[in-house]
Amino acid sequence: MTIALSRNILTNRTEIARPGEPVSGILTIACPDKIGVIARVTSFLFRYNANIIDTNQHNNAERGTFYMRVKFDLSGIELSRTDFAAAFSSIARDYDMQWQIFYSDKPASVAVLVSRQDHCLYDLLLRQKSGELNAGIVLIISNSDALRPVARSFDIPFYYLPVSSANRESQEAQVIELLTRYRVDLTILARYMQVLSPAFFQHYTGPIINIHHSFLPAFVGNQPYHQAYRRGVKMIGSTSHYVTEELDQGPIIAQDVYQVSHRDSIKDLIRKGRDLERVVLARAVRAHLEHRVVTCANRTIVFE
Amino acid sequence: MTIALSRNILTNRTEIARPGEPVSGILTIACPDKIGVIARVTSFLFRYNANIIDTNQHNNAERGTFYMRVKFDLSGIELSRTDFAAAFSSIARDYDMQWQIFYSDKPASVAVLVSRQDHCLYDLLLRQKSGELNAGIVLIISNSDALRPVARSFDIPFYYLPVSSANRESQEAQVIELLTRYRVDLTILARYMQVLSPAFFQHYTGPIINIHHSFLPAFVGNQPYHQAYRRGVKMIGSTSHYVTEELDQGPIIAQDVYQVSHRDSIKDLIRKGRDLERVVLARAVRAHLEHRVVTCANRTIVFE
Amino acid sequence: MTIALSRNILTNRTEIARPGEPVSGILTIACPDKIGVIARVTSFLFRYNANIIDTNQHNNAERGTFYMRVKFDLSGIELSRTDFAAAFSSIARDYDMQWQIFYSDKPASVAVLVSRQDHCLYDLLLRQKSGELNAGIVLIISNSDALRPVARSFDIPFYYLPVSSANRESQEAQVIELLTRYRVDLTILARYMQVLSPAFFQHYTGPIINIHHSFLPAFVGNQPYHQAYRRGVKMIGSTSHYVTEELDQGPIIAQDVYQVSHRDSIKDLIRKGRDLERVVLARAVRAHLEHRVVTCANRTIVFE
Amino acid sequence: MTIALSRNILTNRTEIARPGEPVSGILTIACPDKIGVIARVTSFLFRYNANIIDTNQHNNAERGTFYMRVKFDLSGIELSRTDFAAAFSSIARDYDMQWQIFYSDKPASVAVLVSRQDHCLYDLLLRQKSGELNAGIVLIISNSDALRPVARSFDIPFYYLPVSSANRESQEAQVIELLTRYRVDLTILARYMQVLSPAFFQHYTGPIINIHHSFLPAFVGNQPYHQAYRRGVKMIGSTSHYVTEELDQGPIIAQDVYQVSHRDSIKDLIRKGRDLERVVLARAVRAHLEHRVVTCANRTIVFE
Repeated sequence: MTIALSRNILTNRTEIARPGEPVSGILTIACPDKIGVIARVTSFLFRYNANIIDTNQHNNAERGTFYMRVKFDLSGIELSRTDFAAAFSSIARDYDMQWQIFYSDKPASVAVLVSRQDHCLYDLLLRQKSGELNAGIVLIISNSDALRPVARSFDIPFYYLPVSSANRESQEAQVIELLTRYRVDLTILARYMQVLSPAFFQHYTGPIINIHHSFLPAFVGNQPYHQAYRRGVKMIGSTSHYVTEELDQGPIIAQDVYQVSHRDSIKDLIRKGRDLERVVLARAVRAHLEHRVVTCANRTIVFE
Repeated sequence: MTIALSRNILTNRTEIARPGEPVSGILTIACPDKIGVIARVTSFLFRYNANIIDTNQHNNAERGTFYMRVKFDLSGIELSRTDFAAAFSSIARDYDMQWQIFYSDKPASVAVLVSRQDHCLYDLLLRQKSGELNAGIVLIISNSDALRPVARSFDIPFYYLPVSSANRESQEAQVIELLTRYRVDLTILARYMQVLSPAFFQHYTGPIINIHHSFLPAFVGNQPYHQAYRRGVKMIGSTSHYVTEELDQGPIIAQDVYQVSHRDSIKDLIRKGRDLERVVLARAVRAHLEHRVVTCANRTIVFE
Repeated sequence: MTIALSRNILTNRTEIARPGEPVSGILTIACPDKIGVIARVTSFLFRYNANIIDTNQHNNAERGTFYMRVKFDLSGIELSRTDFAAAFSSIARDYDMQWQIFYSDKPASVAVLVSRQDHCLYDLLLRQKSGELNAGIVLIISNSDALRPVARSFDIPFYYLPVSSANRESQEAQVIELLTRYRVDLTILARYMQVLSPAFFQHYTGPIINIHHSFLPAFVGNQPYHQAYRRGVKMIGSTSHYVTEELDQGPIIAQDVYQVSHRDSIKDLIRKGRDLERVVLARAVRAHLEHRVVTCANRTIVFE
Repeated sequence: MTIALSRNILTNRTEIARPGEPVSGILTIACPDKIGVIARVTSFLFRYNANIIDTNQHNNAERGTFYMRVKFDLSGIELSRTDFAAAFSSIARDYDMQWQIFYSDKPASVAVLVSRQDHCLYDLLLRQKSGELNAGIVLIISNSDALRPVARSFDIPFYYLPVSSANRESQEAQVIELLTRYRVDLTILARYMQVLSPAFFQHYTGPIINIHHSFLPAFVGNQPYHQAYRRGVKMIGSTSHYVTEELDQGPIIAQDVYQVSHRDSIKDLIRKGRDLERVVLARAVRAHLEHRVVTCANRTIVFE
């Protein structure tokens, strides 16, 4: 959870009016656990006539850290967006808070990285189109040219950046340049079959969500369905997690499984897995975009 | 949600100290939706130095009603149990609240009604024994004598009250007399194969949870597994709900399903269903005992 | 299960060679239950050197009917497709069988009927494209023009046939004319928001699979998600079934459910339901296309 | 799958007549894959007037091995149990089969090994009592005396055999002596918190089923719920598998999972896990007792 500066980028975006949905603010807070936080925050919102729609909180006792998310209606609020930070700063200081505020009419910009498989990409594109994700998919990057037609049919810029061990550094620099230029808020690895190098993470710190086609921590790395077949498991899984430098070790956001049997060949596992991957990735992405995910050491809090 | 009087019964109970678990209070509130409720309630608790462990709220927009549950630590609180109501009354009045307070060291008294099937009864007894339910099972009532040995092996009073169309009225009066005498907080119909008459509900208003062996509203009434078999469904279900005068129409608390196939005979459905019934009933009972269930018209809010 | 004549239509189709997959035959049988059927059928295949890949059978004791499906390798078989019927006829006669034979290199022709919602249509198109369905989607029919662009992007003929109570008879005649002209083997109602009239079923007898957005038999008819919301269920479901004259009463092929809570609005149920509908419909369609589904009165046998 | 000798032990058992259930035979076969096996086996049964109730087969292409299970009605059979082996031997020789035959009126004898946790033990005892398992639980062995009262209340012999690193060898010898003396067909480790030593497996070769409280291969070894909590998974699992010398690496028979969240403490995972453990273990045990499980290298075939 980084500090509130990042929201300034968002305020320059074109506003999207979702007809029928009132505009709401989402305030996320992390601070040392101390009595009275909820009372202070909710009293602050009450003072400015902001009706609370939803609040979630979690106290991580081991770390002594308190996490809170408050969603409130902006329709009657007596505090402008520009004045919010100044008004809230004394509370933030008193409680040593890290905080951010988001507005539902400023949807996030999303980049999708893919290779040759299209099922997760199609799924994200269709969910965006149907209004399930409060986000715009602003570009697609791939190390293969195979999915260019999909990008074109949805009118999304497509960048073909082939990669090999020889050019990895420069390719990743191009990826970062694109993410920066498009002011990307969230990067999704939708079956992008490349491991990002440690260097990448030194130069890029924005959130990245991956879909791994196993029930982590089982079957880390390559060909998890082959590994699953060989071990003879009776369920296959999918895991969506934040990407960190260590392969398949980042904080898990969502997981699900599907029953399999001895009748299923590796090909069947791959086919059945596609349905899982789509649903699990979408669930994680949606939670992130609604600011319901907080990372706490290597675990996530996913507010409902 | 009834008003706070009912809690007085609880305060007379023997206190149970769960070793290692700090004692907590749970405050449940229902009131017309109005801005500022959360701020007022949490500020009240803060003033008396009650650290909030968890809060849940839900706003039913259709009915304009706001529901809230706050769990707080009693260890540092500067307000005695006896003074709580007086201190809280001005807030309650301002917001026209219905409210109740519960203390984790006052476990509920539970009655279980059964017929001849033992799987749900055993399940509840074992869960209580293992400490899963913050409750005491204080009596078992049955219209059959078959499960008396089970009751005996767990040292629970067992009442055999046979019933027929001829004696229904007097049998139900005996049931009510027992529930009252044992100061029962929750009655569980654990595969009790009798329909309670309208008269029963005129004379008894305490909460009753039933397990119905179908995915309601499908297969209301008798022999739901037979009905399910005949319709050729591919999943069977179980539903735990509050009992109301209208058969199988009460507010649903928990549901779950299990996959079946053409290979399953009615006997197989019954066998598979037993596993579902146990788990679904226990989930509903646990939610109720933790004061996480609120009834709102014919729907329930089940806080997590 | 109709008799073997229908396969003649298939033999005129262009053969599809699935690279890497050996061609197989699938023989489906229904007959009065009598000892020795399996021995006779498998000995017949053995005599002609057909290696059995898989067999399934089911004996419906109530009806005294035996159902069997045998999949066998065609690579070493010493019996031509044209001679199969003559060779098998004496067994078929002895056991009073209804039977059909299918070949994996003769994929079925599928028609999809839609209205305005695109998620099931996209799902079927993408599954076909990825080779999950051994079928060709040969035409799309709609009572709305909204999804024409989707059809175009997949190069599938699209027929816009608006319908009202005034023109229902002639519109349905046009639908039947198209299904006949395209020699359609399977018709899929992929959220086609029209009820087919009794007259339709008098003139068309080919198999039709529908996806109903509830856990049947709960919430038959209109707006099942609204019905589910009002009843306060804790899970929503989807049901894929063969369409018969009686609305939502046909034999069920596949069902699944998804957990919901009091937090979910009707809009949320609709969104979550889309994921269910896609998966459940695809599962039913795939089972049908692999000749794993047998209808037995109003129930289905779905071989695995 | 071992050869047919072991069945001789069974034939000496007291026959159990399950009222209403006709007696059936179950023939299990493993042999090199060769055309015509099914025809030969089913024709053999037909010749002796044995009506086939169910057949399952699986061809493991990688190993070139064919597995078959045939369940047939004994009511009209014209071949005595004692003559079966002689009559079947020529087929068995021709196809180089390993085979076994079981009779439904000869239920298996089961030993349960436990430590201090009672939930799996109770579950097995109750399932046996309700007739779900075609088996008799003939003894309970424990390294703790805690569950003796449970054994007593179900009238099952209970052996308390404490174990430490010092006496492991002699304790395991006693366990083997008991399993042999009671002619145990299946040993169940129902949360037996001891690892059997390599020496044990040298002296005992009967089947042993364990329940491991994780989704294997994730979280092998000690305290899997603690491991799961630390990794921050969003589902916990249970795995039932045959025990081999290598800890938690044996062939998996059944697995299932349960959703968890950041709200769940380790204590909650343990509580939720108990429900999983019971169901998954019972599913595996039932499959084994119905002779539906075949081990093939380190994977299982579980016929439905």
